[in-house]
Amino acid sequence: MSDYFTVPKISFEGPDSKNPLAFKHYNPDELVEGKSMRDHLRFAAPYWHVMRNVLGDPFGAGTALMPWDDGSDSVENALRRVDVFFEFLDKIGIDYYCWHDRDIAPELNDLAKSNAALEAVVAKLKEKQAEHNKKLLWGTACLFAHPRFAQGAATSPDLNVYAYAAAQVRKAIECTNELDGLGYTFWGGREGYSSLLNTDMKRELDHLGAFLHMAVDYKKKIGFEGPFYIEPKPREPSTHQYDSDAATCLNFLREYGLMEHFRLNIETNHAELAGHTVEHDLTVSANAGMLGSIDANRGDQLIGWDTDQFPTNIYQTTQVMLVVLGMGGFTTGGLNFDAKRRRESHHPDDLFHAHIGGMDAFARGLKIAAAIRADGRMAEFVQQRYSSFDSEAGQKVESGKMTLEELEKIALANGEPQLASGRQEMLENLINTFL
Amino acid sequence: MSDYFTVPKISFEGPDSKNPLAFKHYNPDELVEGKSMRDHLRFAAPYWHVMRNVLGDPFGAGTALMPWDDGSDSVENALRRVDVFFEFLDKIGIDYYCWHDRDIAPELNDLAKSNAALEAVVAKLKEKQAEHNKKLLWGTACLFAHPRFAQGAATSPDLNVYAYAAAQVRKAIECTNELDGLGYTFWGGREGYSSLLNTDMKRELDHLGAFLHMAVDYKKKIGFEGPFYIEPKPREPSTHQYDSDAATCLNFLREYGLMEHFRLNIETNHAELAGHTVEHDLTVSANAGMLGSIDANRGDQLIGWDTDQFPTNIYQTTQVMLVVLGMGGFTTGGLNFDAKRRRESHHPDDLFHAHIGGMDAFARGLKIAAAIRADGRMAEFVQQRYSSFDSEAGQKVESGKMTLEELEKIALANGEPQLASGRQEMLENLINTFL
Amino acid sequence: MSDYFTVPKISFEGPDSKNPLAFKHYNPDELVEGKSMRDHLRFAAPYWHVMRNVLGDPFGAGTALMPWDDGSDSVENALRRVDVFFEFLDKIGIDYYCWHDRDIAPELNDLAKSNAALEAVVAKLKEKQAEHNKKLLWGTACLFAHPRFAQGAATSPDLNVYAYAAAQVRKAIECTNELDGLGYTFWGGREGYSSLLNTDMKRELDHLGAFLHMAVDYKKKIGFEGPFYIEPKPREPSTHQYDSDAATCLNFLREYGLMEHFRLNIETNHAELAGHTVEHDLTVSANAGMLGSIDANRGDQLIGWDTDQFPTNIYQTTQVMLVVLGMGGFTTGGLNFDAKRRRESHHPDDLFHAHIGGMDAFARGLKIAAAIRADGRMAEFVQQRYSSFDSEAGQKVESGKMTLEELEKIALANGEPQLASGRQEMLENLINTFL
Amino acid sequence: MSDYFTVPKISFEGPDSKNPLAFKHYNPDELVEGKSMRDHLRFAAPYWHVMRNVLGDPFGAGTALMPWDDGSDSVENALRRVDVFFEFLDKIGIDYYCWHDRDIAPELNDLAKSNAALEAVVAKLKEKQAEHNKKLLWGTACLFAHPRFAQGAATSPDLNVYAYAAAQVRKAIECTNELDGLGYTFWGGREGYSSLLNTDMKRELDHLGAFLHMAVDYKKKIGFEGPFYIEPKPREPSTHQYDSDAATCLNFLREYGLMEHFRLNIETNHAELAGHTVEHDLTVSANAGMLGSIDANRGDQLIGWDTDQFPTNIYQTTQVMLVVLGMGGFTTGGLNFDAKRRRESHHPDDLFHAHIGGMDAFARGLKIAAAIRADGRMAEFVQQRYSSFDSEAGQKVESGKMTLEELEKIALANGEPQLASGRQEMLENLINTFL
Repeated sequence: MSDYFTVPKISFEGPDSKNPLAFKHYNPDELVEGKSMRDHLRFAAPYWHVMRNVLGDPFGAGTALMPWDDGSDSVENALRRVDVFFEFLDKIGIDYYCWHDRDIAPELNDLAKSNAALEAVVAKLKEKQAEHNKKLLWGTACLFAHPRFAQGAATSPDLNVYAYAAAQVRKAIECTNELDGLGYTFWGGREGYSSLLNTDMKRELDHLGAFLHMAVDYKKKIGFEGPFYIEPKPREPSTHQYDSDAATCLNFLREYGLMEHFRLNIETNHAELAGHTVEHDLTVSANAGMLGSIDANRGDQLIGWDTDQFPTNIYQTTQVMLVVLGMGGFTTGGLNFDAKRRRESHHPDDLFHAHIGGMDAFARGLKIAAAIRADGRMAEFVQQRYSSFDSEAGQKVESGKMTLEELEKIALANGEPQLASGRQEMLENLINTFL
Repeated sequence: MSDYFTVPKISFEGPDSKNPLAFKHYNPDELVEGKSMRDHLRFAAPYWHVMRNVLGDPFGAGTALMPWDDGSDSVENALRRVDVFFEFLDKIGIDYYCWHDRDIAPELNDLAKSNAALEAVVAKLKEKQAEHNKKLLWGTACLFAHPRFAQGAATSPDLNVYAYAAAQVRKAIECTNELDGLGYTFWGGREGYSSLLNTDMKRELDHLGAFLHMAVDYKKKIGFEGPFYIEPKPREPSTHQYDSDAATCLNFLREYGLMEHFRLNIETNHAELAGHTVEHDLTVSANAGMLGSIDANRGDQLIGWDTDQFPTNIYQTTQVMLVVLGMGGFTTGGLNFDAKRRRESHHPDDLFHAHIGGMDAFARGLKIAAAIRADGRMAEFVQQRYSSFDSEAGQKVESGKMTLEELEKIALANGEPQLASGRQEMLENLINTFL
Repeated sequence: MSDYFTVPKISFEGPDSKNPLAFKHYNPDELVEGKSMRDHLRFAAPYWHVMRNVLGDPFGAGTALMPWDDGSDSVENALRRVDVFFEFLDKIGIDYYCWHDRDIAPELNDLAKSNAALEAVVAKLKEKQAEHNKKLLWGTACLFAHPRFAQGAATSPDLNVYAYAAAQVRKAIECTNELDGLGYTFWGGREGYSSLLNTDMKRELDHLGAFLHMAVDYKKKIGFEGPFYIEPKPREPSTHQYDSDAATCLNFLREYGLMEHFRLNIETNHAELAGHTVEHDLTVSANAGMLGSIDANRGDQLIGWDTDQFPTNIYQTTQVMLVVLGMGGFTTGGLNFDAKRRRESHHPDDLFHAHIGGMDAFARGLKIAAAIRADGRMAEFVQQRYSSFDSEAGQKVESGKMTLEELEKIALANGEPQLASGRQEMLENLINTFL
Repeated sequence: MSDYFTVPKISFEGPDSKNPLAFKHYNPDELVEGKSMRDHLRFAAPYWHVMRNVLGDPFGAGTALMPWDDGSDSVENALRRVDVFFEFLDKIGIDYYCWHDRDIAPELNDLAKSNAALEAVVAKLKEKQAEHNKKLLWGTACLFAHPRFAQGAATSPDLNVYAYAAAQVRKAIECTNELDGLGYTFWGGREGYSSLLNTDMKRELDHLGAFLHMAVDYKKKIGFEGPFYIEPKPREPSTHQYDSDAATCLNFLREYGLMEHFRLNIETNHAELAGHTVEHDLTVSANAGMLGSIDANRGDQLIGWDTDQFPTNIYQTTQVMLVVLGMGGFTTGGLNFDAKRRRESHHPDDLFHAHIGGMDAFARGLKIAAAIRADGRMAEFVQQRYSSFDSEAGQKVESGKMTLEELEKIALANGEPQLASGRQEMLENLINTFL
């Protein structure tokens, strides 16, 4: 097997801990709340960023050094990437991965040929999964990069495009199933619009609803057991994306009767572009029983686009893991590093620095979150804060048996309420004591 | 009756058109699409901005000159304001108005006393409505200004606050009914949170759901016929507002089984703070059959707070009126000027400049929207753009009888789709020809 | 000569005015304030957007149909584009153009070869300029697209990159001079940083200062008479751009003693990304005597990146032309359409729709601005507003002879100041009467 | 002396460290880089937030409990606050403070009376400073809260307002001098504009320049030795603030010949509102030798206004202290907590939680910054990254003796540059190892 990466097996805490390419906090077998860190975190590597992202941007060409890639659209090249990718997964110690159909196999501008190429690569992935003991966290179809999808895929005004999108999705679900994928994701990069002047929003969303119902039908037909995920994102690439945040997706799923077949895949960077913290959108999803998986990255709140940086902010990884532990951990989902190196970090070694940083930051966030939970002061404060609703009157409210008139009587009887302080600053200090 | 405003009756198009205090476009009796401009636009004046906004901001005190107001919390002062307000409505030619309970009558820090004061003012409002032939577009309770609501009202962690909020809402609905109000609005200024560290989001939203169900029960009980409106707004005053945009409100209403009792009241400035155009949130609402009323103002997209400027942008008023005409016009709702003068515009005359500007801008937007509709090219372009879905296969998609497999066959048969241009620039030019 | 564009000569106001591909307001020979519209507006077409922009974005490939382009890096292909470009300029009626070195000729990854290719194309451009009576508004070197510039050009940490950038700039100035270019622009797309962790900001800016001084020396040496322009832009592509807005550029030019050799090239979209209106950055520049030229486009203030849309907003074109007329018009500069079609507008016809829309919007803005100036009420209001400074005491302030103590005496003597209203709403209404 | 605060003397690390009201990291006498933490950090408490901020916002009244304050504008009340403030400084262990004239003494709408009240309070402050061994970090005049300043102070269109502002500034400098203040600050809250339609930007800035020159003259005359600070801020309260960020202020100071008399006072929250990180604006200032003092707080990058939160983010305090240590520490400046509690944190205890959190976060940032400096890897990476400029050719560039032609020769000779990776991810990981 080729050995493109010069980086040795990454060490865990021990004599190598001064090595910038060593884990300081992530020890996959260490137990936290009775479960190994590996099982808590379920890290996944995205094929698109690791193998296919050349690190271009709207103002410049790609910079990434990829000595294993001949730059061609050949199936040989695609198969060679598979070897390199599994070498990477082994060396970095990541158990799961994700793909778009067009990451793993070439877009050949002919559906039958593209499908054939895809099948060839999927066959090899299947072998490599078994050989390296890796799993597919989820698959997806790329319905946004090709010019045919410039005006949408499942919301395209053109039925032929819609049909093409359906064909790609059918095949991608089939391949995901073939690889025992744990889930399948829909990110609607072009499902939205640039201007309402040329758009029939209602008709487009009806088409999207119909599309997803067909996908559900197909999934049942072939016996694919995993959940479907929707990944919210606002403003990019369509100025107005239909799936702009968690609540907007839930509204759509409720309206079109799709709640039972879907979960959400929440990404930090996307939540922030929508004006929310990631813990907000995670909590909105978890409260609805709809948090499925996480795209673990980091945005830059001072700028207005998807920076997809690696997650290194311990405050943020702690908040994410508090929500994940709070819902009892992942079932089919995991932490997919939907993150790319900066364009200036063009060396393959940077892939290691980047993923090690992200994994360590989440390992640390997991430990801190577990410590906060074990300590109990934070949860107790919150429980206490709402304790007036544990009273008889409060329970009447919560059980839907209260009336405005009864509450008015309480208000008239009790006089001006005396509020306890919200103590946000104290709680922020408390968080700092766990870092 | 007092005559605080020195401004004469505002003239319509004619010899006075060079007067900056004259209408150039708004002629209430002029017919557009067979209905008078008055009936299309249904302008409303908000009591809070016209009568109570002293034009302060977080960095400085109020500047507005209000010679009729002695600054006291007395009922006399409150009653005197009513006279001035109806004088204003008459002079400016606005037929509807809106209030919060605490705008029209003082908050006396004693619920019974505050209620009594409210009743006194409502009695006078009822007289004046009849005398001046004005209508209440909607009433609402102010559940955000008093310190008791600092941690929420219907989402407060404190049951006593929740009860107080319920009492205010009950009374405000009662007063709205007494004044034959056409609707009743909920704007949850404090329904949200500053930090998740001290917040139980799920419990808070359950309480909000229960609260609104009680309001529905009460409305039915007293026979109030008008709709309830929810007004979305993100980020302010709570950093994380639960009702952040139209789709988020719809999601909440669907989850808690409240769709049939509510409509949305969409505000331009709020939609933009959520990252949407106003026409986006209007269309999201209208598509769900949920667009009830509009808070007509203008934001400043370069800054991140609610500037509540008067609507003077013709592009924007045109877009708004396109949606309103498209849904067949308002039923119970209207265009409420939830707008304030700049802090530097402290003279009562500025109230006239401001409202005339807003009314004229909407009159012009109405005429332009009607012209665009009469012309038909815009609508035809959109209809044509989606016409492939009028085919047999397209209709099979739209009726829910299509499958992914069938679509794949179409895709394989048809080859690479040939997209027609989206022609956004052409349509933008077309809009300009109507200005 | 090839005739790639099927669109006929664009008509001016007259029988074709219902044609969406006809000018409604722009008549190049019509006089406004005693000068032709052509001379006021000095429209320029950017080679990069018209000829080279394939309409890709970070999430998808290019969509633009360019039947004249074989996609190769050959000099033949580059020369063929020149024919098409001048055909476009003729048909659309634009007199000026702008280029980057790598737009007009290929980057061949060998400096000597790239220079030779550039010379070949410049020779042809020179012929075509004479033949079609077109002028080069400005040239520039592309120091941001190639991977070698990923970490900066004149602020690169690598001296070899710095030298390469210097070589490209020398050649580009030479070519600009050869083509009798009216100016030369520096846009520092990679002059900035992604993270301070790896950046020595002081050393980078010193290098940039030295670089620009070398360019000034070279310009003098070869006798290039035109001004150098700096084009401010924040946040993109570098997260932290050194030339983030007009004031920041002026600060840099003052610090490094470069004021006399430079002017600013202000772009609407860039000013807005920096949180300013375009009229703000234009006025900051004009007040310093430093407004040289304008990149005329439009941004989307609801999203955080450079949308480079065509300017169609009449309010905005009016504001721009008010500043331009106010400073007595352009000298060497003009209105360069640094704008691209939406990715969905992939047809060559859309180039015509887009430019006609932009030209018409500016023609209209020019007429409105001239009407506002002729009317005089706006200027008189402003003059009157500051008239207290025309007093003796005011003139003492303005001539630098006043003291705090004297002003204190005035304040003690005069009591509380009585402010006149700022009347913003009235003035906004006044603007609308001119539309 | 009154004892309004029930909180005991705050303990340092030791047996009380589980007490949320105990310092975990700040030990004033502990040495870091050979200097005590007290001397490194020079914490200051702002009179306005500690004593006068009632915690209102644009949508609601104040919530803060202030049992020592009778709410009146009396001098007695003002004097009583002084006692409480020094009690607070003692208990929290802060050595410096800052004020606006109208924080410490009432605005009595009569300049002579307001001045007399100010003198009375200043006399008491002088006593208390000596008694408690506290120092005034800087004073300033409030030229933004009173309606008279609604249209600006030193940029007001009204000469009487300008004179009033001058009178307040003269008095405030005098009082600062009387209290041996170490500096004096100008924050131009109303120096800007809401709309260019009614604004003569050039004339306003000329007036501001003249104003500051008068202040310099006065300072010299009375022998005040401390520096003047300008505090940049964009967008609030004026939509367009003239002092929007560090570079903009430097540009102004350069243009008006004021560089030698001023330094900048950089605030985290303000830098972020301008789209910069705080370390960016600190570095811009420090590189120009113009970093004077710091307003230490924290913003919320997801919303668009000044949240003035207490600094608790360790990443941010580390970055700030890296710049401060890098410039050799403060001279006259310090870390002023320009921060307020959340509106929900209305109890006096929250003042302690808030300040302890901020002080501890900065103490920790100081230790981490010192550790990073001691470690040296970060600095060495940066030094190495630019080392090609230490070569002969590089030095020729840096000494201003290079030419474009010579650099071109180098570029032609050396071929395509080979860039080293920027290694941002590695450096971000390195930072995490110090937390």
